[in-house]
Amino acid sequence: MTKKLLPERTIERLSEYRRTLLRKLSEGITHIHSHSLASMHGITAVQVRRDLMLIGFSSDNKKGYNVSELIDFIGKILDSDNVVGVAIVGMGKLASAITSYFNGKRSMMRIVAAFDNDPDKIGKEIASIPVYSIDSFSKECERLGVKIALLTLPAKALDGIRDVIDNSPIKGILNFTSKPFTPAEGSNVYVEDYDIITLLEKVAYFTKDDNLS
Amino acid sequence: MTKKLLPERTIERLSEYRRTLLRKLSEGITHIHSHSLASMHGITAVQVRRDLMLIGFSSDNKKGYNVSELIDFIGKILDSDNVVGVAIVGMGKLASAITSYFNGKRSMMRIVAAFDNDPDKIGKEIASIPVYSIDSFSKECERLGVKIALLTLPAKALDGIRDVIDNSPIKGILNFTSKPFTPAEGSNVYVEDYDIITLLEKVAYFTKDDNLS
Repeated sequence: MTKKLLPERTIERLSEYRRTLLRKLSEGITHIHSHSLASMHGITAVQVRRDLMLIGFSSDNKKGYNVSELIDFIGKILDSDNVVGVAIVGMGKLASAITSYFNGKRSMMRIVAAFDNDPDKIGKEIASIPVYSIDSFSKECERLGVKIALLTLPAKALDGIRDVIDNSPIKGILNFTSKPFTPAEGSNVYVEDYDIITLLEKVAYFTKDDNLS
Repeated sequence: MTKKLLPERTIERLSEYRRTLLRKLSEGITHIHSHSLASMHGITAVQVRRDLMLIGFSSDNKKGYNVSELIDFIGKILDSDNVVGVAIVGMGKLASAITSYFNGKRSMMRIVAAFDNDPDKIGKEIASIPVYSIDSFSKECERLGVKIALLTLPAKALDGIRDVIDNSPIKGILNFTSKPFTPAEGSNVYVEDYDIITLLEKVAYFTKDDNLS
């Protein structure tokens, strides 16, 4: 059976709702109305209700959504049944910061291995994860069951990594370099480009003096 | 005179085109066709031409766009006339990685100051930038002419920073915490939320076994 995929923006919002709900639950809140959830995310209540309708979640209208039920429900959509292992390609400063930041937070997803071509790093542990040679990328991803990779290598090394990715079990990529990543032709790897400089230039543009009326 | 703002996605692409063009220029390429630029970004040539039409750039159709003219032209749209100073709020690992990553790359934008409430950090230099007390945020931003802030503090500290931002010269925010940042009511600060975990959960969703047909 082929399941219909949810829209990308809905997936993003479900992830965001869950984080808010987990916080509210820890504050002792058991029920929440769509308009409260909406205002915490700066969107409309209609949008929240539409997202939750899409995943088939309904609420007791008087009391609002049951917070812990909704957390579980979103988890069924977003999470895999087992912990998902993630690999880092390029173990520099940014990678190390992302690893520390990330492994402290989520339990269903973990950065489990890093790959680099620097002999000084290979065989060591950095930010508490083992660093392997990029030459053993496919083999280690296979062994560890890793299907998602974060690219934190220099942009100029992206082209060289395309075939390595193509010949590996990787199915999803989060690209932190300053260049878009184009997967090998015919591959159906899902790519999300995540470029800090583009976003910062965007903020700068929208805050330029001559753009403020 | 109030200028009409360009669409957000166009701004993002202009920033991306420029980086590609700078690389091509360094490789000795002087002219480039819209379809080449398009294929490097995984979009259509029509999209590229529409973006450049929006900013009023036209080309000699036979030879393609003049690379160095186009770089200058995009710079006039995106860049300020002077170097733009950027402040970091929360000088942890992620902030330090972003600073090193960023200050190595762009000349028209620089991270010039960091703010923290940790007495062990205040008064020191971290990643080559001075760390000030968050209590002097507005004063230092004023002195340094800083109008853009990157938020890299813990998500739970976001609420406490709202008034600090509101009472400062800050006009644009790039928020790296796991929680959306809502500016104080009535303020017209431009906010871009940039959340790593949401994006990673999105990649994970689109690469889940039962979502791959």
